[in-house]
Amino acid sequence: MSQTLQSFLDALASSAPAPGGGAAAALMGANGAALVSMVCNLTIGKPKYAAVEGDMRALLAKSEALRGRLTQMMEDDQAVFNTLMSAYGLPKQTDDEKATRKQAIQDALKRATEVPLACARACAEAITLSREAAEKGNLQVISDAGVAAAAAEAGLKSAALNVWINAPSIEDKAFADSARKEIDRLIEVGGLDTAAAYALVKSKL
Amino acid sequence: MSQTLQSFLDALASSAPAPGGGAAAALMGANGAALVSMVCNLTIGKPKYAAVEGDMRALLAKSEALRGRLTQMMEDDQAVFNTLMSAYGLPKQTDDEKATRKQAIQDALKRATEVPLACARACAEAITLSREAAEKGNLQVISDAGVAAAAAEAGLKSAALNVWINAPSIEDKAFADSARKEIDRLIEVGGLDTAAAYALVKSKL
Repeated sequence: MSQTLQSFLDALASSAPAPGGGAAAALMGANGAALVSMVCNLTIGKPKYAAVEGDMRALLAKSEALRGRLTQMMEDDQAVFNTLMSAYGLPKQTDDEKATRKQAIQDALKRATEVPLACARACAEAITLSREAAEKGNLQVISDAGVAAAAAEAGLKSAALNVWINAPSIEDKAFADSARKEIDRLIEVGGLDTAAAYALVKSKL
Repeated sequence: MSQTLQSFLDALASSAPAPGGGAAAALMGANGAALVSMVCNLTIGKPKYAAVEGDMRALLAKSEALRGRLTQMMEDDQAVFNTLMSAYGLPKQTDDEKATRKQAIQDALKRATEVPLACARACAEAITLSREAAEKGNLQVISDAGVAAAAAEAGLKSAALNVWINAPSIEDKAFADSARKEIDRLIEVGGLDTAAAYALVKSKL
């Protein structure tokens, strides 16, 4: 988070394997949460929107907490990647070493599934908040609620890809199936919510 | 581009009217282009992908040029916003002043439509490049091509909202109609291309 936008994009574009799609997913979700906050901040205190003042304050508290979680996830993604690489790099000469390495890889794969799953959940939450911003926010900045929903949905769809990559290599099939089922549901509901928020914003322009 | 990610997101979330959805749109497009470059950079030079080496080098040149254009658009968006605010702030006492102000606002509105339209075109191009990356890129990083497409589509849908906001206030109806028609087409084609790229990536995981 202390990198400049330019250096982040340069690192993303480079042959360095991280940051990659996982960090980009969390960043898009954070953009979505930030834009919900912007709509709230430009609605709160306006006499015309006094009736929704309490709702917008509550929404702002949620969007800012969510933004904090999503920015943290950019770093979690990097940590998970490092853990997975370390596990693959463990020695594998003796049977004991092989068993230890295998367990470390399985643990790292689970973590590499849980982190994007948490990111997908947070992005789905950002979509829900965007929809409320689109319903109640200041009309002068209502387009930003539509951008928020689009950004958060892209984050959700991106995080899902990272769940799908790792799930097939996980030997705990119940864990893998549960993760896949949850992602399918998040994508389905998130897609409908995004379409509703976007159409609502478009109808108000 | 010299701001940190944290300060950009803080400014996005704040009550400052810029940066807003326009800058976020260009940033998402730039994320998409950067991830296409990442896929290229992790495919070029691998013996297994020698057959597509030339294609990937050509794709990388396109994605890096596009990334440069999209990052520039983050600044164009800010400039357009300032121009529009200056135009609205012009004096409007005399008839001459009123006429000058009206013309300045109309010119600024056209520019405020052209800039997101250019961003939408660039995002559509990023989707096309993502699809090629999904078709030919290194399977180990193919998910990043899917993230690239999702990010670029979110940028396109976001830029479209900024075209739709300004178009109704433009008195040159031929200009406004042409912009709206182009956006509708970009969204339709971009949506299909994104779905194709994303499905292709998912099938390869």
